[in-house]
Amino acid sequence: MWVYQYDNRIALESLKRMEWPDPEPGSHDIVIQMGAVALNHRDIAIARGHYHIRVQPPLVPLSDGAGRVVQIGQEVTRFRLGDLAAPVYLPDWIDGPVTPRAGRRRLGGPTDGVLSEFKCVHEEEAVRLPSFLSAADAATLPVTAVTAWHALNVTGTLTAGDTVLIQGTGALSLAALQVARMAGTKTILLTRDDRHSPRLRALGADIVITTRQEPDWAEAVLEATGGNGADVSVDILGGDSLNRTIRATRVGGRVHAVGYVTGTSATIDLFEAIRHAVTIHVATAGHRASFEALVRALDQHQVRPVVGDQYAVDRLSDAFEGMAQGGHFGKIVVPLSQQLEAASQV
Amino acid sequence: MWVYQYDNRIALESLKRMEWPDPEPGSHDIVIQMGAVALNHRDIAIARGHYHIRVQPPLVPLSDGAGRVVQIGQEVTRFRLGDLAAPVYLPDWIDGPVTPRAGRRRLGGPTDGVLSEFKCVHEEEAVRLPSFLSAADAATLPVTAVTAWHALNVTGTLTAGDTVLIQGTGALSLAALQVARMAGTKTILLTRDDRHSPRLRALGADIVITTRQEPDWAEAVLEATGGNGADVSVDILGGDSLNRTIRATRVGGRVHAVGYVTGTSATIDLFEAIRHAVTIHVATAGHRASFEALVRALDQHQVRPVVGDQYAVDRLSDAFEGMAQGGHFGKIVVPLSQQLEAASQV
Amino acid sequence: MWVYQYDNRIALESLKRMEWPDPEPGSHDIVIQMGAVALNHRDIAIARGHYHIRVQPPLVPLSDGAGRVVQIGQEVTRFRLGDLAAPVYLPDWIDGPVTPRAGRRRLGGPTDGVLSEFKCVHEEEAVRLPSFLSAADAATLPVTAVTAWHALNVTGTLTAGDTVLIQGTGALSLAALQVARMAGTKTILLTRDDRHSPRLRALGADIVITTRQEPDWAEAVLEATGGNGADVSVDILGGDSLNRTIRATRVGGRVHAVGYVTGTSATIDLFEAIRHAVTIHVATAGHRASFEALVRALDQHQVRPVVGDQYAVDRLSDAFEGMAQGGHFGKIVVPLSQQLEAASQV
Amino acid sequence: MWVYQYDNRIALESLKRMEWPDPEPGSHDIVIQMGAVALNHRDIAIARGHYHIRVQPPLVPLSDGAGRVVQIGQEVTRFRLGDLAAPVYLPDWIDGPVTPRAGRRRLGGPTDGVLSEFKCVHEEEAVRLPSFLSAADAATLPVTAVTAWHALNVTGTLTAGDTVLIQGTGALSLAALQVARMAGTKTILLTRDDRHSPRLRALGADIVITTRQEPDWAEAVLEATGGNGADVSVDILGGDSLNRTIRATRVGGRVHAVGYVTGTSATIDLFEAIRHAVTIHVATAGHRASFEALVRALDQHQVRPVVGDQYAVDRLSDAFEGMAQGGHFGKIVVPLSQQLEAASQV
Repeated sequence: MWVYQYDNRIALESLKRMEWPDPEPGSHDIVIQMGAVALNHRDIAIARGHYHIRVQPPLVPLSDGAGRVVQIGQEVTRFRLGDLAAPVYLPDWIDGPVTPRAGRRRLGGPTDGVLSEFKCVHEEEAVRLPSFLSAADAATLPVTAVTAWHALNVTGTLTAGDTVLIQGTGALSLAALQVARMAGTKTILLTRDDRHSPRLRALGADIVITTRQEPDWAEAVLEATGGNGADVSVDILGGDSLNRTIRATRVGGRVHAVGYVTGTSATIDLFEAIRHAVTIHVATAGHRASFEALVRALDQHQVRPVVGDQYAVDRLSDAFEGMAQGGHFGKIVVPLSQQLEAASQV
Repeated sequence: MWVYQYDNRIALESLKRMEWPDPEPGSHDIVIQMGAVALNHRDIAIARGHYHIRVQPPLVPLSDGAGRVVQIGQEVTRFRLGDLAAPVYLPDWIDGPVTPRAGRRRLGGPTDGVLSEFKCVHEEEAVRLPSFLSAADAATLPVTAVTAWHALNVTGTLTAGDTVLIQGTGALSLAALQVARMAGTKTILLTRDDRHSPRLRALGADIVITTRQEPDWAEAVLEATGGNGADVSVDILGGDSLNRTIRATRVGGRVHAVGYVTGTSATIDLFEAIRHAVTIHVATAGHRASFEALVRALDQHQVRPVVGDQYAVDRLSDAFEGMAQGGHFGKIVVPLSQQLEAASQV
Repeated sequence: MWVYQYDNRIALESLKRMEWPDPEPGSHDIVIQMGAVALNHRDIAIARGHYHIRVQPPLVPLSDGAGRVVQIGQEVTRFRLGDLAAPVYLPDWIDGPVTPRAGRRRLGGPTDGVLSEFKCVHEEEAVRLPSFLSAADAATLPVTAVTAWHALNVTGTLTAGDTVLIQGTGALSLAALQVARMAGTKTILLTRDDRHSPRLRALGADIVITTRQEPDWAEAVLEATGGNGADVSVDILGGDSLNRTIRATRVGGRVHAVGYVTGTSATIDLFEAIRHAVTIHVATAGHRASFEALVRALDQHQVRPVVGDQYAVDRLSDAFEGMAQGGHFGKIVVPLSQQLEAASQV
Repeated sequence: MWVYQYDNRIALESLKRMEWPDPEPGSHDIVIQMGAVALNHRDIAIARGHYHIRVQPPLVPLSDGAGRVVQIGQEVTRFRLGDLAAPVYLPDWIDGPVTPRAGRRRLGGPTDGVLSEFKCVHEEEAVRLPSFLSAADAATLPVTAVTAWHALNVTGTLTAGDTVLIQGTGALSLAALQVARMAGTKTILLTRDDRHSPRLRALGADIVITTRQEPDWAEAVLEATGGNGADVSVDILGGDSLNRTIRATRVGGRVHAVGYVTGTSATIDLFEAIRHAVTIHVATAGHRASFEALVRALDQHQVRPVVGDQYAVDRLSDAFEGMAQGGHFGKIVVPLSQQLEAASQV
C-alpha cells in the first residue's frame, strides 16, 4: 500500500510517498481503505514545528480521515465489511474525564496518522458512520466536529433556547454551529466579511455579525441579546479577543476556548471576568463516546458536515497553504479513492 | 370582580361564584385579567380530598392560568400594561435546588388559585409570555409544561440525538414531547389506542407505540432502540408500570417519575433496576427560571402548546369529569374572556 | 497453582479445589499471589442460583481479593514486583458513565474470580494499594467499598456538613461510613441492636439509631435532623424499607439504593416521593477510576477498612453461611497466604 | 445610633461618623447590633475609586459584619432575640445560578454596608450563626469565606483525597484552606516567606511551599503531586501568575480565579491551557445557601475562622492601610461592641 511519511524530519518538504506492505489485521483489528482525509490547524503547526507537544519522525501525517472497512479480524464485533468507518483521533480516550493518558496517542503526531491507502486499527479505536455520509463528509469529523461536540455537550451542556456565540467559518466553527443547531439553540455567528452570511444562514445561523462592519462585535452581541450576552460562547480567536468574548457572554455564562487564531497568548481583564462570573473551558478534542453521540445526532437530524475546498493528494502542499491562509468555509478535504466516493453517493 | 371559591369545604359541590372587591395592586404588584385557566390532576385530587398535602377552605381553585396585565404598581419593572402574563404556580421558588420553602405556597391549594376575573400578584411571581401565544396557550404552561421542562432540562439534561420515551397524550406528556423535540432528541410515544398516532406524529413523535397492539411495550421500546432502551424516560404511569419503564430505559439511563396514572404505589424490581443502574428522579413542578427558559425556547422555536378540550366556565364540573376520565389529548382549558382571546389572535 | 472452581454446576457442593498450571503473564500482564479474598452477597446469590445475571460453570468464584505482585510482563508500567495489588471487579469499566459494556466481564461470575493461588490480569485491570494496608484490608475494597465510593462521590457528590444516613453494619455500610466521614459529612447509622453502637461511634458515626428501640427509624432520623431529613441516604434495606428511607431524606435529597436486605421488590409511595422530590440512584459497583480515587483518599486519611470475621479457606462454606445469616460487622475475609500477611504488617 | 458614611464623595478622608435615628424594623425585619466588622480588598478598591462597578455617595462602607439580634419584627421566623447573625453580602442572591440580579445590591457599595451601630435587614437577608463563634469570627465570613465555599463546593465540587492548591495567607486563602480541609482534601499552600508555615500547618496545610525559596513554585507543586499537578487550584494572584497556576494544575483540573494580587490583567498561554484542558472559574462571591451550608459545616467540624489583626474603629484608616499592604495572616477585623463580644465567650 502507499503511505505518506515525514521521513527524517518533520517538514512539508520531507514528506514522501512510499510503499509499505499491506496491513495484516489482528483478531480484533479492522482495515479501512481511506476514502478521504482532512486537514487541521495542528497539521500545519506540526509541519512547521510549532506544535505544543513533541512530535518526531518518521511520522505518517494527518488525524482526520474515513473510508470503507475492507478487512476485519476474526473476533471483530463492532464493524462489518463495507461499513464506513473513521479512526478515532485519540485512541486511548474511550470515555470519561480527560486524563494525561487520554492524549498519549494522537493520530497524525506523535502517533502515525491516516494519510495512507489503508489504515489498520483495533476495532475499539474506530467509529462506524451512517450510510448517508460520504467518506469526505466523515473525514471532517474526528478532530474538529468531535471537539465541538465534546465542548458543547460533554464539558458543558446546551439547553434549547440558549444563545450560542460562534466565531468564524472554519471547520470547527461550522461544526459548532451544527452541534448548537441540533440542540435547539439560537446561534450568533461572527464572520470577517459579509460574503459568508448567506451560507451561514443556510446552515441555520440565526444572527450573523460581520466584524468588518461592526468591529466592536462584543457590543453587537450584547445588543442582539437584549444586553445579556450569549449563554455559551465558542472562542476560536484566542489572543486579546478572548477578553471580548468574555464581554459578549452573559453573567454566569460559559466560554469554550477552542482556538488561537489571533494569538496563543490570551489576555483577560479579571474585573471584566469577575463581573461576568464566567467559566472558561479550554478544550482538547473529545473522546470516542462523544464521536459516537455526534454520529447518532447527525443521523437523527440527517445533517451532513460542511466539506469545503477539496485538493487532490498530489496538491497536498497547496492544501496546507490554503489551511494556513484561513478565510475558507468548512473543512479542507483531500479525497483519496474516488470510486468509493462515487459509490457511496448512489 | 367575580371569583370562584370552595367555601366551607373543599368539594366540587361547594364551589361558588362570588363577588370580591377589585384588587388594588401594591407598588410591585401586577393585576392580570385572566383570559383562560386550565386543569391539572391535582385539581381533581384536591376536589376529591386525595391530595398529598393538606388544603383547607376557603380556597380559590386552579393553578394554571394566564391573561393580560391590566394594572401595574408604580415600581413594577418586569411587566408593561397589555403584556400576556401567567402567575407562577410556586411563587416561592425562583431558582436553585428544590427546598421545603419552594413548595410552601402553591396556587390552587393551599394558596388561592387563578379561577377569578383578576389575579393580583407581585411582579416577581409572574412570567411574561410572547405575543404569538394566546391566553389559552399560555394557560397550559405553569404547572405541566414547566414540570416537563424542569425535569428534562434542569433536574436532568437532554442531548441532541438522545432517545426519550414518553407515555400518554395528556398535557404533561405532550409538553414533554415538545420539550424533547426542541432539544433535538428522538422521541418514542406510548398511547393506548392508535387514534392519537397521527397527531402525535404531527407534533414530532418519531415512533408511536400503541399499547393496545403491543401490551409488552417495554419490549417494543427495546426493539425500537436496538436493544438499548431509551436514554431518558418520562414515566406518567406510576404503579407497577414504573418497573416496565425501567426495563425500557438504557443502562445508566434516567427515569423522570412525573405521574401516577396506574397507581400511587409503585413497585420496583431492584434486580431489574440494578441491571439498568437507573436513576429515578421524582419530579415536583419547577421554578420560575424554568418557566422563563421554557418560554424563551418556545419563542425561539415558535412552538405553541397543545390546547385540548375547552369548556365554558359554567361547565366546570364537566371539565373536571373529562380530566378525571383521561384519554384526552392535550390540556383541558377553560377560556374566560373571549374578547381578549380574539384580540390576541389578530 | 491451586484454584477453586464450580465444576459442572454452580452450587457450593460442587466447588472443588484443583490444580492448574501456573500462569504465564503476557507482556502487559501481572501475576498476583492472592493474600486474601473476601465475600459479597453476590457470591451467595450466585451459589444459590438467585443472581440477576446468568452465570455458567465452570467458574472460579469470588470477586474481591488482593495480594502481592510476584511476576510482571516486560512492558508493564503500572506495577512493580512486590506491590500490593487488587484485580478490579469490572475489568471493562475504566472510567466514564456506566454502559452495558461496563458490566460485560465481572470477576466471580460470569468471569473467573479470584479464589486461586495466583491471579493473572492485564495491568490495566488492577489497582495498586498503599503499603499501610494488609492484603486482608485490600481484599475488602474492590466490590463494596468501590460501590460506596462510586455512588457517593461519582454518581452523586458529598459536601462537608451534609448529613448522610447509612443502614446496617455490613461491609458496604461501613465502607459508606468511611467514605462519608472522609468527605467531612455528618453520619447517621442505623443498626438493629445496640451492641454495634460503640464500634460504629469509634468509626466516626455521629448518631446511631437502634431500630429495635426505635422501630419508626424514619421519624428518628427526622428528629435528629431538625425535621429536614438526611441530605443523602444509602439504602441497604430495599423492599418496603426503601419508602421509609425516602421519608427520612430531605426534600430534593438523594437516595442511593445499593442493597436488598429486606427484599428485592421495593415499593414506593409516589406521593411521599413527590413531596420529597427525591432522586433515587440505583447503584451498580464502580469503575477503576473510583477504585483509584478511593485508594488515594484512604491513603491521605490513613483509613483502614473494617475487616470482620475471618475464615480459613477450608471453612469456606461456614463463611458463606455467616454471610447469609447477616448481622456481622464489616467484611467477611478469607486470608490465603499468611506469610505474606504477616510480612506486610511488619 | 452611630453610623460611618462616605458623605459627599467616596474617599477615606470623607468618611464621617454621624448620628442616625435608631432603626424601626418592619414585620419581617431584624435589627442586628453589630459586634464586629471586617475588611475586604473591595473596600480599598472602592475607597480608592478602582472598583469594577460604579459606587456613589452617600454610602455606609464595609460588607462584612456580624452581631446579636436585638429586635425582631412581628412575623419574623428565621431568628430569635439574642441570635448571632450576619447580613448577607448579596441580599438578592438566595440560591441558584448567578444572574445579573444576584449582584444588584451589594452591602458596602453600591448598597449601604455594615459599619454602623445597628443594621436592620429583612430576615431573609441574614444568616444565623452557631453560638461557638464570636462576632469577630462571624464577621470574617460573609464575603471571603462564602466566596471560597461557593467556588469550591457549588461552582465546583471537592472530593476527599483531591489535592487543592491555595495561594497566600489572606482571609480568602485561609478560608479556602479551611473549606478544603473540611472536605477531606490534601492541601498545598503557597506563602511568600517561611514565617507563616507553622500557622499554616497548624490550620491543616499538608504541604507548604515558600515562594521566596522556590520561585518556580509551579514546578514545586508538580513535584509534590508526582508530576500530576493539583486537582483544584485557588488562584489569588491573578496577573501573569494565573498561567503558572494553570501549569501547576492537573490535566482536566479546575482553577478558581478569585483574586488579582499581582495584577488585574491575566495572561494565559493557550497551548499550556490546552495541554491541561483546564477549566477556569472566575468567582464572584456566593449565595445565601452557600453561607448557610458553610455555617453548617463549620458547626459540624467546630472550626473557627482565622481572625487576624484587629483594629479599633477609630483606627479604621490604619486598618485600611494594613489591608492594602498585604502580607497579613487572616482577616482584618474591627471589633465594635466589646461587651457583647465578651458575653459571647462565656
